[in-house]
Amino acid sequence: MAVYTEIADEEVADFVAEYDIGRVIACKGIAEGIENTNYLLVAESGTYILTLYEKRVRAEDLPFFLGLMEHLAGRGIPCPTPVHGRDGRALRTVAGRSAAIVTFLTGMWPRRPTVAHCAALGEATAHMHLAGADFPMTRANDLSVVGWRPLFEASVRRPNAVAQELAAELDAELTVLEADWPTDLPAGVIHADLFPDNVFFEGERLSGIIDYYFACSDFLAYDLAVCLNAWCFERDGSFNITKARRMVNAYRSVRELAADELDLLPLLARGAAMRFLLTRLYDWLNTPKDALVTPKNPMEYVQKMRFHRGVRDIRGYGLG
Amino acid sequence: MAVYTEIADEEVADFVAEYDIGRVIACKGIAEGIENTNYLLVAESGTYILTLYEKRVRAEDLPFFLGLMEHLAGRGIPCPTPVHGRDGRALRTVAGRSAAIVTFLTGMWPRRPTVAHCAALGEATAHMHLAGADFPMTRANDLSVVGWRPLFEASVRRPNAVAQELAAELDAELTVLEADWPTDLPAGVIHADLFPDNVFFEGERLSGIIDYYFACSDFLAYDLAVCLNAWCFERDGSFNITKARRMVNAYRSVRELAADELDLLPLLARGAAMRFLLTRLYDWLNTPKDALVTPKNPMEYVQKMRFHRGVRDIRGYGLG
Repeated sequence: MAVYTEIADEEVADFVAEYDIGRVIACKGIAEGIENTNYLLVAESGTYILTLYEKRVRAEDLPFFLGLMEHLAGRGIPCPTPVHGRDGRALRTVAGRSAAIVTFLTGMWPRRPTVAHCAALGEATAHMHLAGADFPMTRANDLSVVGWRPLFEASVRRPNAVAQELAAELDAELTVLEADWPTDLPAGVIHADLFPDNVFFEGERLSGIIDYYFACSDFLAYDLAVCLNAWCFERDGSFNITKARRMVNAYRSVRELAADELDLLPLLARGAAMRFLLTRLYDWLNTPKDALVTPKNPMEYVQKMRFHRGVRDIRGYGLG
Repeated sequence: MAVYTEIADEEVADFVAEYDIGRVIACKGIAEGIENTNYLLVAESGTYILTLYEKRVRAEDLPFFLGLMEHLAGRGIPCPTPVHGRDGRALRTVAGRSAAIVTFLTGMWPRRPTVAHCAALGEATAHMHLAGADFPMTRANDLSVVGWRPLFEASVRRPNAVAQELAAELDAELTVLEADWPTDLPAGVIHADLFPDNVFFEGERLSGIIDYYFACSDFLAYDLAVCLNAWCFERDGSFNITKARRMVNAYRSVRELAADELDLLPLLARGAAMRFLLTRLYDWLNTPKDALVTPKNPMEYVQKMRFHRGVRDIRGYGLG
């Protein structure tokens, strides 16, 4: 949670004057979003989110992200819709940052995801995958298998940063993932960061999927693997097979998974665990002590990776 | 800016069900407020602020703060109004914290206060003082003259924390303030923390005064002295005499200042500078490196204190 860039009241007023959304009534920095600065913007015509893109988001990727949100919103996916200025542009500049105004989604993210939440997420993810099928832009996933070893090397190169045994385990796991990672699964646009804090619910009804700033072109089943890790483990580290089964079956009720997608789900889940393990490890080692954001503990994802390594086939997820 | 206490979606829903404000539509932690955790709460009936009181606010003071807001709001002062639950109570508990829901005020706080802002503030402060006159509760100002020396001692006792020359200067200044501090100026309820981030404007119209959690019973003119320090110095440290004159004269257009209030304004401004200097110094020395809140530099207030020490009478503020 962080506001990295302060924005002055006159700056907001001038910026909003470039849109057809009425005058600014209030603008408050919100404590959500790790990569960017987000303001809740109340204007005469309604409530919006004003996002200032910070340095970790590459400017050249922004048209993909904003274009994707607009595409998905137009196909009924509950995602923020970029608002265009009077000149037609959605991507602008304020306070020295690239910035966009998007629509506000109601609902809250579930602090304790239930089976019903997991099922709703599975269904919505499949709808999103289908809706993204005709999105014309592509963006390589730079946090997929080819990106993992450089991250690993950067972390283990720091003296005493990673215990020798853990480094050996990650090295061996990476070798397996690099050798066995699939090349020809059904692919398309994926969200790639479907954690609970990016999914809003009103009660058990899914009301919004936000934060498309890791979205990319990759295997569709990999998105589901990210969800298995982020939604189906309990706080004590145990895997909730009921949540997994309901999530995957809800997905399949909208978009059936091919046999190889199902067969490879344990491997994809290992890879998904590795991806978050490595970025968390990197952030853990490189976040200054006085940073606004507290880094997340990477060890949670080591445990998840080990769990999936022990799964022989999808029966381990209550499926099949 | 900080969210100290996370609150779960079900907790918010259960809490809000105790009020007649409809169901929760969204609830976002906001990056405002240094002492407490604030959520922007969107309910079916409108937008509110949900405040969770953290440890620096004493529970026994909360009835004073909430009662004052309700009193002032009832007399037309643009301040948040506590919302009562179905059982009549405004002060409740959630997530292990004392908590209250108050109405949401529109507007933004001015990042660069203008002369017009200062004039509007002077007028609103006087209205607030008049409206508070019949508020039945009292609360001693524990950050007034008797509270300063203990804070000073706590800071200088730390080895090498304060340069010897500065410590001597503060000691001498404290001795003057303790000797000359008035005892019989017109008193009543004051806000005591009227900094720009606590005052909202829509353009040049003052639309809200928030954050009553330092409010107390003290000299009314001391409130104005706090404002002189917080609003009338430019970023380069220079004192803007036009802002001061317009602010004080706007105040006097609503509530005339007695001769002794005017005469003592430079001394009250020295005391007000000392008060913020000392709490900032204390926080500066005692905030852990990894705290969510960055402490403010106390030296800004040393400069302000020195300025007022050089002011012989109110002509130094463009008045008289």
